[in-house]
Amino acid sequence: MYEHSTTVRVRYAETDRMDVVYYGNYAMYFEIGRVEAIRHLGVSYKDIEDMGIILPVVELNIKYLRPAKYDDLITIKSQIKSLPIDHKIIFDQEVYNASGKLLTIGQVKLYFMDADMGKRAEMPAIMKEKLAVYFS
Amino acid sequence: MYEHSTTVRVRYAETDRMDVVYYGNYAMYFEIGRVEAIRHLGVSYKDIEDMGIILPVVELNIKYLRPAKYDDLITIKSQIKSLPIDHKIIFDQEVYNASGKLLTIGQVKLYFMDADMGKRAEMPAIMKEKLAVYFS
Amino acid sequence: MYEHSTTVRVRYAETDRMDVVYYGNYAMYFEIGRVEAIRHLGVSYKDIEDMGIILPVVELNIKYLRPAKYDDLITIKSQIKSLPIDHKIIFDQEVYNASGKLLTIGQVKLYFMDADMGKRAEMPAIMKEKLAVYFS
Amino acid sequence: MYEHSTTVRVRYAETDRMDVVYYGNYAMYFEIGRVEAIRHLGVSYKDIEDMGIILPVVELNIKYLRPAKYDDLITIKSQIKSLPIDHKIIFDQEVYNASGKLLTIGQVKLYFMDADMGKRAEMPAIMKEKLAVYFS
Repeated sequence: MYEHSTTVRVRYAETDRMDVVYYGNYAMYFEIGRVEAIRHLGVSYKDIEDMGIILPVVELNIKYLRPAKYDDLITIKSQIKSLPIDHKIIFDQEVYNASGKLLTIGQVKLYFMDADMGKRAEMPAIMKEKLAVYFS
Repeated sequence: MYEHSTTVRVRYAETDRMDVVYYGNYAMYFEIGRVEAIRHLGVSYKDIEDMGIILPVVELNIKYLRPAKYDDLITIKSQIKSLPIDHKIIFDQEVYNASGKLLTIGQVKLYFMDADMGKRAEMPAIMKEKLAVYFS
Repeated sequence: MYEHSTTVRVRYAETDRMDVVYYGNYAMYFEIGRVEAIRHLGVSYKDIEDMGIILPVVELNIKYLRPAKYDDLITIKSQIKSLPIDHKIIFDQEVYNASGKLLTIGQVKLYFMDADMGKRAEMPAIMKEKLAVYFS
Repeated sequence: MYEHSTTVRVRYAETDRMDVVYYGNYAMYFEIGRVEAIRHLGVSYKDIEDMGIILPVVELNIKYLRPAKYDDLITIKSQIKSLPIDHKIIFDQEVYNASGKLLTIGQVKLYFMDADMGKRAEMPAIMKEKLAVYFS
């Protein structure tokens, strides 16, 4: 399993009139978690796109347990539980607040796609190599 | 079953560098669909909040089939398939583009909550009355 | 002078914990106003981009007089006060609430740019022709 | 003069189909700059709101020189050039990319307001004290 955590601070723009983070913004928090998890492997998501491979989300599932609030320092945990063998990659993601309370649980499925051809592709070799280390 | 559809135009701000609508923005499209579906019943979501009842989302599930693009006139369809009998309400939601292609399917579960008490509540009587008509 | 108004409803996602529309979202409201003003001329902003001309904003000035609130039906008024003679176009924009109160005043300066060449361009002939009618 | 800089990474959600940061998102970057500048003084913006003082933006002016791009590590510089003597406070703000190029220049004027009374207030004593050190 590969796991990485990153921390961000809740912005004013991300709150709504219920005085909590707007429910739609967790998709963005999850995106940040995935991007930083990939960067930590030693390859950036931007590098992958520059190779002509894009990673559209095909499925998103979120459970909201407790709200994040303005100025909270939240931790986004991202896990890859199994090494992708075809065009699919699944991230299990969680958001915690500064006192360690679990706020949100989610799962995101993405496809590796060839941007020019518009069809499914395999995970880039460089990313496969970096990731394989965690699954031996 | 109760069903309502509403139409919005994709904004520049809602696109991303992949030249499609950012995946996190569908939560907002679903919100618009729910709000207009409730308004069409004859009570606004704002009215409900003014009664001291809030409706936090507790679960969100989305499948992305095709992307929405800039300036697309999209239709958001919202269905309530069973009359809420306790504090839960479930919306089944779909997004279509102008040529009728299904882009996104989702399901959103919300809880009626008493804003002051911070605990679960029942659906307001006025909303129950309006909605019951569709389930007789 | 050319003037056009369009109406949108304030979304939950656009509010913040101060229970008003987040100040950064007025840039998006202004964008909607400009896009609909151009569409009303008989050419869409998307058409212009498809011709290879983009319109980046180079200057934005906003005065906030009164806040917009959740679910408000706001009107965005957009004016072009002088016919563009070079690569610049200026929109004077205002936001009103449903009872006609002026909420926000702004001015947005944009440049016509050739997307491929990355340099300043003239307003597309089709748009100039449509717009000229209002300045004769 | 008081000056503070903070760094953030451009998120996918913040880009648009022009492959740059959407122009409306700079208001949010400026907000982050101000919030971190105030925190660096030793009082958080959230603390100020908890004292019953809110800081609505009354004027925003931005000049866009160069675009920020996806995954850029941008620096937001915030300056307070004169010690507020009444209810007004002005921030001069700039955004730079990782290679030190100036991308955006802005100025934001805010009012200290008593949230309950809905009228103008003075800067909280604690903030005035912390800030005065830089203007002696």
